[in-house]
Amino acid sequence: MHTQEAEYLIIGRNPVMEAVRSGRTIDKILIQREAEGSVKKIVAMAKEQGIQLRYVDKKALDRLAPGRPHQGVAAQVAAHTYASIDDILRRAGEAREDPIAVLLDGLEDPHNVGAIIRSVDGAGAHGVVIPARRSVGLTEVVAKASAGAIEYVPVARVGNMAQTIDVVKGKGLWVTGLDMDGIPYSEADLTGPMALVVGGEGQGLSRLVREKCDRIVSIPMRGHVASLNASNAAAVLLFEIRRQRTIAENAGKKEGTGE
Amino acid sequence: MHTQEAEYLIIGRNPVMEAVRSGRTIDKILIQREAEGSVKKIVAMAKEQGIQLRYVDKKALDRLAPGRPHQGVAAQVAAHTYASIDDILRRAGEAREDPIAVLLDGLEDPHNVGAIIRSVDGAGAHGVVIPARRSVGLTEVVAKASAGAIEYVPVARVGNMAQTIDVVKGKGLWVTGLDMDGIPYSEADLTGPMALVVGGEGQGLSRLVREKCDRIVSIPMRGHVASLNASNAAAVLLFEIRRQRTIAENAGKKEGTGE
Repeated sequence: MHTQEAEYLIIGRNPVMEAVRSGRTIDKILIQREAEGSVKKIVAMAKEQGIQLRYVDKKALDRLAPGRPHQGVAAQVAAHTYASIDDILRRAGEAREDPIAVLLDGLEDPHNVGAIIRSVDGAGAHGVVIPARRSVGLTEVVAKASAGAIEYVPVARVGNMAQTIDVVKGKGLWVTGLDMDGIPYSEADLTGPMALVVGGEGQGLSRLVREKCDRIVSIPMRGHVASLNASNAAAVLLFEIRRQRTIAENAGKKEGTGE
Repeated sequence: MHTQEAEYLIIGRNPVMEAVRSGRTIDKILIQREAEGSVKKIVAMAKEQGIQLRYVDKKALDRLAPGRPHQGVAAQVAAHTYASIDDILRRAGEAREDPIAVLLDGLEDPHNVGAIIRSVDGAGAHGVVIPARRSVGLTEVVAKASAGAIEYVPVARVGNMAQTIDVVKGKGLWVTGLDMDGIPYSEADLTGPMALVVGGEGQGLSRLVREKCDRIVSIPMRGHVASLNASNAAAVLLFEIRRQRTIAENAGKKEGTGE
């Protein structure tokens, strides 16, 4: 699994071939005119996948990859860069909204991470925090599952989620863990600055993270299975947060106008 | 993609080999003692996947597969059987609840179908209806994504979803389509007998199905992406239905006790 920080240019025949094979998003492949051998195979694979090709002189590639053996080919790839927690809070501030950040504690399914980023966008929350370890990074599967939301939602990556909880508490966020044996989510007050902590697919929140939370909320399960899919659970919470805030905003407006 | 109706025993070397390769759930593989050749390969693959093996006499296999060439091997597989719409309504009736059925109009992602079945279980809804064509059936990927909920939630399969909408209308269900350009879901009254129709990942509800709905509700999108992941959207609706019903039930109880 590769993450994509500041990785704008892939250089050389094998690396480019691998990038094409992996299905990762490639903006454009630059091909040296008259290049022979395995470059033709790269061209064929790229055409099959509808990747844009541009034929350039050797000098142009030399300039792009100074001093590196480009072997007549380079690929420009989309790079997802990570944001900081301050970026997420600033985004809320600019929108004059109480921040809503979603902290993912060890999710391993890239479809779930992508779907959560999509729901964060849809619910008007402000960003996502993922741990550097025990989690997926911003892979192309995540990007695809986010349906493009990854381009808009800031995602921060942190070394230690328990420490990060202390950090966001210090910035005035109320830390709400989503896990079993908490108060029913729809009976909780979900307005105000909030960090929502969502646990991994198998085991939920880790013990230390759970202990750090200001409170635990649960989605009451009425059937036989003990929990929801992680992205479904996050969506239920994010849209209940949005629903409660909309009611609070409308009540505030009414007060403001004396209605 | 295979569906699994009444398919309890897979017989013969190639079919069993394929079943093992496909990763489908196998309860047990029966092996004829002293079997040679490709059976050894099946045994190795099965051990690798942790599938239970039982060595039996040729007579035992002859009895299980009378008159069929078993070639010394047979696999017992889990079979998911389909329910009927009446089964779903009966389930609600037995629980003395207004029925909630989820109709899936052309979902193609088995992870989404499985997650929806899981949310149906969690929200205490009564069943799922899928179309026989343009949709996934109850494959093992669906079963796995449902986290076991498939064992409890009745799933009906129908030839024509538009006709099915007429059928459930005739049985007193209020048909609510989840799609763009409808009334905001949290402003809609979601109590009472209901069929919730969820569209496919790409195009939403098909035109005919949308026209047949009694009303369309939408999840307001506050960001850049136009819609949620289909299973996330279904979860948001299912738990809003549950939230509204719980409030209505509690209000009813208070009236009943004169509080």
